[in-house]
Amino acid sequence: MIDTAALAERFLTTLEARNWEAWQALLADDVVYELPQTRERIRGRAAYLIFNQTYPGDWHLTPKVIIGDGRRAVIWFGWLVRRPEGDETADAQVFLEFDDTGVITKVTDFWPEPYEPPARPEGLIERW
Amino acid sequence: MIDTAALAERFLTTLEARNWEAWQALLADDVVYELPQTRERIRGRAAYLIFNQTYPGDWHLTPKVIIGDGRRAVIWFGWLVRRPEGDETADAQVFLEFDDTGVITKVTDFWPEPYEPPARPEGLIERW
Repeated sequence: MIDTAALAERFLTTLEARNWEAWQALLADDVVYELPQTRERIRGRAAYLIFNQTYPGDWHLTPKVIIGDGRRAVIWFGWLVRRPEGDETADAQVFLEFDDTGVITKVTDFWPEPYEPPARPEGLIERW
Repeated sequence: MIDTAALAERFLTTLEARNWEAWQALLADDVVYELPQTRERIRGRAAYLIFNQTYPGDWHLTPKVIIGDGRRAVIWFGWLVRRPEGDETADAQVFLEFDDTGVITKVTDFWPEPYEPPARPEGLIERW
């Protein structure tokens, strides 16, 4: 069985290292990258590479939870962007699909943003 | 090995069915539920049950992708809220942690919202 969790971790650590050669080696030529929140899609490894190489900011990615089942994997990761006015940080998720040889054929990112909680029943919730 | 993917699917389908008895049976007494985007935490199955039973709106959940590895699982699901002025729908994710007997000890929800894409390099992106 393909160790999709290990490949997913490598996907994130090679991105963090800007090791574009090792990162590209994980991807199919015709990989599809989707961002459902903005309804954006990129087709092909070459375009996806440019997207990442030109992504603005001093960004850093740290895996928190990785789950793989032989066909797919998910990485729940922390991201951090260093800025002169102070770092910005939150969590995000990337879902990966693999072919039978362990090559990534589809990548889907979710970038959840902080929001103010709505009214809740009293006494149930603690904040951190 | 615990089939955490099957248990995760049952977690979502019993929620969708408002089958509170079957849903509660999946959870540890001291389950912890967290919403990182709002920094909210609920401790205990009883409080988490009230939270869900009183959650406003005619909400519906449909699994899209489930990945489990024997210790954890994730469900990428579609949610829909029926409203007189029109349905609202998007995707969300729930991460589950299990103990050695397959009981859920921790639940973490992410509710990513749609947003307008920033400027991107030209010619890379299609929208859907």
